[in-house]
Amino acid sequence: MKLLEKMISTQPIFDGRIIRVHVDEVSLPNGRTAQREVVNHPGGVGILAIDDDKNVLTVTQYRYVYRQTLLEIPAGKLESGEDPREAAKRELREETGAAASEWRSLGEIYPTPGFCDEIIRLYLARGLSYGEMAPDEDEFLDVRRLPFSVMVDMVLSGEITDGKTCVAILKAKLLLGL
Amino acid sequence: MKLLEKMISTQPIFDGRIIRVHVDEVSLPNGRTAQREVVNHPGGVGILAIDDDKNVLTVTQYRYVYRQTLLEIPAGKLESGEDPREAAKRELREETGAAASEWRSLGEIYPTPGFCDEIIRLYLARGLSYGEMAPDEDEFLDVRRLPFSVMVDMVLSGEITDGKTCVAILKAKLLLGL
Repeated sequence: MKLLEKMISTQPIFDGRIIRVHVDEVSLPNGRTAQREVVNHPGGVGILAIDDDKNVLTVTQYRYVYRQTLLEIPAGKLESGEDPREAAKRELREETGAAASEWRSLGEIYPTPGFCDEIIRLYLARGLSYGEMAPDEDEFLDVRRLPFSVMVDMVLSGEITDGKTCVAILKAKLLLGL
Repeated sequence: MKLLEKMISTQPIFDGRIIRVHVDEVSLPNGRTAQREVVNHPGGVGILAIDDDKNVLTVTQYRYVYRQTLLEIPAGKLESGEDPREAAKRELREETGAAASEWRSLGEIYPTPGFCDEIIRLYLARGLSYGEMAPDEDEFLDVRRLPFSVMVDMVLSGEITDGKTCVAILKAKLLLGL
């Protein structure tokens, strides 16, 4: 495999609650070496939950790194050893109070492959019923229902910027013809 | 703004060639505090370059964090103080040897807003002409032309996983009707 890069050594930098950071020395295809800054992430899930009236469950939350609120589909990190589909059910319930009777994969996205190994699994959830929300204690959310067609327009106009939300909405638009 | 989180203190962790890492203590809307692990990134660009025969310029490269090659649109990081559109022209030329006479924004994506402040600006480039490639010296790429319709199918089937590539292809499909 002529493009392969092989690890020569690794220098641990940080082992946090969410991310782990290290700097690796790698050998390049031409025999030279380079440094790669790497962020390890447990991976996550995003859930496009659409009700029988073609409304999408959205969460608006403050994203500290951008110093702004973002409108997104419900999402969250995998817990240690957790099955992604179970994580999706858990996050949908915790963030919106909803459960779904129909689940379908919308594939995986690799959000930023230059330095981070995060994988986000996307799901379509339909057949919704509603219970009690139970967000994490340091999580503050506004939950709203928005028409699917409005969400498509907001992605195409650039008003929705969250990557997983863009991919889930546009894939559903083209795959389901909604 | 009831969802606002305010920084109380910041602890620098790592100042690398590409990313900077710090852990911030923040005050939450309920008056309690929480820790936020933050990765600062200079931001990047992704270029959907489509020729007159509706072929897309793609680059396949080894993504060390995933230990696999990924098929992506040409992309790269902003250099210090660089205008994003100039960065897009530079990256397209460096990675594929191509120049474009027509440029159009396809919006921004926030790839992973839970911990990283990266913003990727997407561009559509048309009216292509070809010169010499000049990739970075630690960058190894396979450049290929693929029909736009094949790219759409590869995104919808889950074969293409790179987030910026998924968003650029699907936005172009719906905005341009290609």
